[in-house]
Amino acid sequence: MEKGRILLSVTGFNPQRWHELLSASREVVLKPDGPEDPSITYAVVWKQPANILAKLPNLRAVFSIGAGVDHLFNDPGLPDVPIVRVVADNLTQHMVEYIVWRVMDHHRQGALFRNQQQKKIWHEPPQRLARDISVGIMGLGELGRAAASVLLGLGFRVNGWGRTDRPMAGVETYHGDAGLVPFLNATDILVVLLPLTPATKGIIDYGVLRQLRRRNGLGGAVLINAGRGRLQKDADIVRALEDGTLKEASLDVFEVEPLPKTSPLWSHPKVFVTPHSGATSDPAHLAAPMLAQMDAFERGEPLQNVVNREAGY
Amino acid sequence: MEKGRILLSVTGFNPQRWHELLSASREVVLKPDGPEDPSITYAVVWKQPANILAKLPNLRAVFSIGAGVDHLFNDPGLPDVPIVRVVADNLTQHMVEYIVWRVMDHHRQGALFRNQQQKKIWHEPPQRLARDISVGIMGLGELGRAAASVLLGLGFRVNGWGRTDRPMAGVETYHGDAGLVPFLNATDILVVLLPLTPATKGIIDYGVLRQLRRRNGLGGAVLINAGRGRLQKDADIVRALEDGTLKEASLDVFEVEPLPKTSPLWSHPKVFVTPHSGATSDPAHLAAPMLAQMDAFERGEPLQNVVNREAGY
Repeated sequence: MEKGRILLSVTGFNPQRWHELLSASREVVLKPDGPEDPSITYAVVWKQPANILAKLPNLRAVFSIGAGVDHLFNDPGLPDVPIVRVVADNLTQHMVEYIVWRVMDHHRQGALFRNQQQKKIWHEPPQRLARDISVGIMGLGELGRAAASVLLGLGFRVNGWGRTDRPMAGVETYHGDAGLVPFLNATDILVVLLPLTPATKGIIDYGVLRQLRRRNGLGGAVLINAGRGRLQKDADIVRALEDGTLKEASLDVFEVEPLPKTSPLWSHPKVFVTPHSGATSDPAHLAAPMLAQMDAFERGEPLQNVVNREAGY
Repeated sequence: MEKGRILLSVTGFNPQRWHELLSASREVVLKPDGPEDPSITYAVVWKQPANILAKLPNLRAVFSIGAGVDHLFNDPGLPDVPIVRVVADNLTQHMVEYIVWRVMDHHRQGALFRNQQQKKIWHEPPQRLARDISVGIMGLGELGRAAASVLLGLGFRVNGWGRTDRPMAGVETYHGDAGLVPFLNATDILVVLLPLTPATKGIIDYGVLRQLRRRNGLGGAVLINAGRGRLQKDADIVRALEDGTLKEASLDVFEVEPLPKTSPLWSHPKVFVTPHSGATSDPAHLAAPMLAQMDAFERGEPLQNVVNREAGY
């Protein structure tokens, strides 16, 4: 085989399915041959062991299996080659569905109705329309923009915040440090889709939650984190729920995953926990485009969705 | 005042807000003056007492406060004047939100995740995308078409069934008796938005539920009834849930409302109960268009949204 080999290095799940699919057109190995392996030209990784990529003299690019790439930068031996983030229609669609699901369940008072049902209470609470509610999306990248578009279609008002100014039709956009408080002040339901970088780590703290809009009749603001767990401070979320700063939260990600059994979030009546399942990296949809990128790259075409190492995403 | 008076006759809720709003431009009374009252030209009703409309010689039209008009036909003294059904952007939007909410919660396995959270289980189940799921809407009127449009925007496949053929772009439509079984066979999540007529009463029975598609990996079909309670047979739904014909159901309406405390639906783990709150008739949004219709009618313009008495809706 003329093509270089792929190193498949994943931690936390079984690589078998990825191995099968990537093997369709290239040779795939699970670890390098010996201390230095010139036969490997691409690495497909998720939380690879530290320094495993350092001794691959012919490595041309690293492909991350998930949308987040923060895990890569924990590796002190990360070589200076392009890092490609997965961008897949499939993954985006999964995430948008998760966000619509959680926004609708908070908006339509799912917890209240489930509580009423348990007590066999027949009572119709006041219900606002989507057009009276502002959803604020932190992170207006691929996922954030796709979510904004669908939420607009459902009738919500949508605000967006990001590091840099990225206007979007129909969305009230804010950016940078100066834009953060005005963005939060105009937001009823906060959806977090930021990448995890040194600048965003722990950004969702009590002070930020405190700036969310709390309007009469809505009973407090809502937090939905579908991004990365270390964007948030779990303890600050509990505090905000306890003192009414937050009405409810849907959390798909946590500072430590799996969420420890000792976490108060598991049994908090105002928290909805999902196990980092907002968007699955389904190899059946992701492997083929990855192989196609490698082929295109070798024909001289540029790689798509290359990570900006300075920004960290 | 030159304009004729409005008779406001509602059962089951306080008419005060309606009274205030309708009084903005016409005199409103809660009952006729004496056995025959020629001063009344319009009736605004919800489950009016039988025969109250029979002795109004100058009655020109009856306005129903809700989208359903079946309650009117229970009155043997219903006079032969046009009946106007409420069609309001507000009401349609409320209903579409309810349907999106319930479809997403079943599609994204809300019950399973709530159960896992209770047991502190960190496990990611397989999750299909909306594009792999067919939502079938029974009743392609104003509400059904609005719901179909939003569900298409979310990526679902959408089937529609109605009494007559009403094509809609992007929707696989079926109609009449001959179309019912093929429609059900192609549907994973059934959304019921039919009007209640002699022809549709009890239509959602075990035999119909049995025809829904049950595919591997989806664990049975789902029923969402946001129409009228007497479209369904409560006992048949319980039977279908018990034997696996149905995976889950969201019911906003019931054969008897309020749902009796003795109903097994209240505590069924696969049923989500809401108290007929899919769409509220909010007088703040409905009264003004109603008054505008009366004015337009008196200027010689035709009434909008007149009920077809033969069809019963």
